[in-house]
Amino acid sequence: MSDSNRRKRFVKRNGEKGSIEELKRGILDNDRGQLAKAITLIESNKGQHYENGQKLLQELLPFTGNSLRIGITGVPGAGKSTFIESFGEHLCNLGYRVAVLAIDPSSTVSGGSILGDKTRMEKLARNPNAFVRPSPTAGTLGGVHRKTKETMLLCEAAGYDIVIIETVGVGQSEVVVREMVDFFLLLVITGAGDELQGMKKGIIELADALVVNKADGENQALAKKTRRELNQILHFLQPATKGWSTRAYTCSALENIGIDKLWDTIQRFEADTKKSGVFSERRMQQTQEWFYSMLKDRVLNEFFQNSAIKKELPRWEESILNEEYTSTKAVESLMKIYNDQ
Amino acid sequence: MSDSNRRKRFVKRNGEKGSIEELKRGILDNDRGQLAKAITLIESNKGQHYENGQKLLQELLPFTGNSLRIGITGVPGAGKSTFIESFGEHLCNLGYRVAVLAIDPSSTVSGGSILGDKTRMEKLARNPNAFVRPSPTAGTLGGVHRKTKETMLLCEAAGYDIVIIETVGVGQSEVVVREMVDFFLLLVITGAGDELQGMKKGIIELADALVVNKADGENQALAKKTRRELNQILHFLQPATKGWSTRAYTCSALENIGIDKLWDTIQRFEADTKKSGVFSERRMQQTQEWFYSMLKDRVLNEFFQNSAIKKELPRWEESILNEEYTSTKAVESLMKIYNDQ
Repeated sequence: MSDSNRRKRFVKRNGEKGSIEELKRGILDNDRGQLAKAITLIESNKGQHYENGQKLLQELLPFTGNSLRIGITGVPGAGKSTFIESFGEHLCNLGYRVAVLAIDPSSTVSGGSILGDKTRMEKLARNPNAFVRPSPTAGTLGGVHRKTKETMLLCEAAGYDIVIIETVGVGQSEVVVREMVDFFLLLVITGAGDELQGMKKGIIELADALVVNKADGENQALAKKTRRELNQILHFLQPATKGWSTRAYTCSALENIGIDKLWDTIQRFEADTKKSGVFSERRMQQTQEWFYSMLKDRVLNEFFQNSAIKKELPRWEESILNEEYTSTKAVESLMKIYNDQ
Repeated sequence: MSDSNRRKRFVKRNGEKGSIEELKRGILDNDRGQLAKAITLIESNKGQHYENGQKLLQELLPFTGNSLRIGITGVPGAGKSTFIESFGEHLCNLGYRVAVLAIDPSSTVSGGSILGDKTRMEKLARNPNAFVRPSPTAGTLGGVHRKTKETMLLCEAAGYDIVIIETVGVGQSEVVVREMVDFFLLLVITGAGDELQGMKKGIIELADALVVNKADGENQALAKKTRRELNQILHFLQPATKGWSTRAYTCSALENIGIDKLWDTIQRFEADTKKSGVFSERRMQQTQEWFYSMLKDRVLNEFFQNSAIKKELPRWEESILNEEYTSTKAVESLMKIYNDQ
């Protein structure tokens, strides 16, 4: 190796190491600029950036896990952004530091809600105790979730007391968010008595609280009726969290009514589950399940991205749909192709 | 190759082929003995038996798909066996040929219900129009389901008009059964108004009908009350089948009340969904999903059964739970170990 090359490598190495050290210090000192930079690394799919992001995360791991993690979902139109803004402001006023991460992998489907959210949450984003970050919308669903979970860990290392993860109540997203958070809140609104008809199956049973938003003005009586109906249903369903009884509440994010009571409920949830051990049990289980789901995703991804499989799969799928072959036969043939390479 | 070897091979080949041909003819002629033999092949994990079973299934594939497939689930104690016996007898009396397959992968958990079921369904099993087969209880969950699905296909080739698949309402089993059948029935009983508290999350939303069994004697009023409550809940949930409205019904399998009405409902379901195209759409989708789920199971199984992975995995899992490493780091390390072999 020439002297000049050796020097270049030395500088580069040092530069990288210095940069990770710098980011680490910055995050631990709650420098928002450094936090934002670190999130960009975590979100990057480029080799070196990705690797640096992972190294940084590894360094910060001992400083994570100390926030209360809250997931919020709801159908489009339930007023999630307004609610989170009100709720976030309330928490900031109480002296908490609040990070808000928004997942919207289906932004093309739900029609540009990302832009809307960004605009609407600007007030909260300007609060010195708040940190608002829209999610990456590119990449696979699994990738988006990895990035969100790792961003949550960075926010925890930066000392945020409460991390709110927002997701739209359609698709697979809310199940994955449920597996990242301690408390899961489902936001609904009143309608023609059929509020939940449009919601994904089983979503109620993921929630630790159902909140009927927009309980203001003329809508108040209807909101209360919806709350009663929801409580009736909840009576028949299994609660999402052992020992906790999921109930329905009303609130008006617009008029800031019921937000304080909801926060009391969440605090009671935290105290109860920490006392019973359910809180830490769930965290442990989440870590384990997260690991296995990442591992499985990766193994399956390697298989389905394999060029021979990509070439052969459509032919076998078609022959099965045409009832020319049994699924067992097709699976065996594809495994042989994969293993014989 | 010596003459004697060649002859041996010829005989063996012919013997096998003859035997598969014989089974095929037997099944198409509705010879129950041959059907039972074929199911034993399908259920076997031994190389040659398994292969012959698969060859036979391949041959019979064009003769499958013509039955109405009904899944029945319910908590232990809901009276599934008594219900299926009554229901099956009713169908046999109407001139239908009925096959009943029971899945109970958790027999060790639920405490010997297999033996109980077998005894209780003996009356139906003696009916010349019925065929009752308990499921294989050994093997992985995925394996049990493959065998059940393939047994269902054999029964269809043997000309059974209705195939009933019974499963206990705990664990993963009922989700997989829902994906095998056209109509899914959830059997419940009255209790302290909390009938569903013990049930698995989301199970109501898999069902095309909820049936409150044991609506006889003093229990009748309570059963009707439960039916009303269930209908209220159903109003808020998404139906399992597009265009069909899932409702609750009462019946008494013991006193044979309400069974006829339930069959009318199922026939209406079949007629409606066949007319709307939902029936064949679902069959197509089920075939496709079945294929992909088998393929994924197989790919993951190869990974997790790999000896290097089996050796390294526990160590990595522990280090993640101890927060020594990020999941991403562990996944990458394991993939490297797997791919470098």
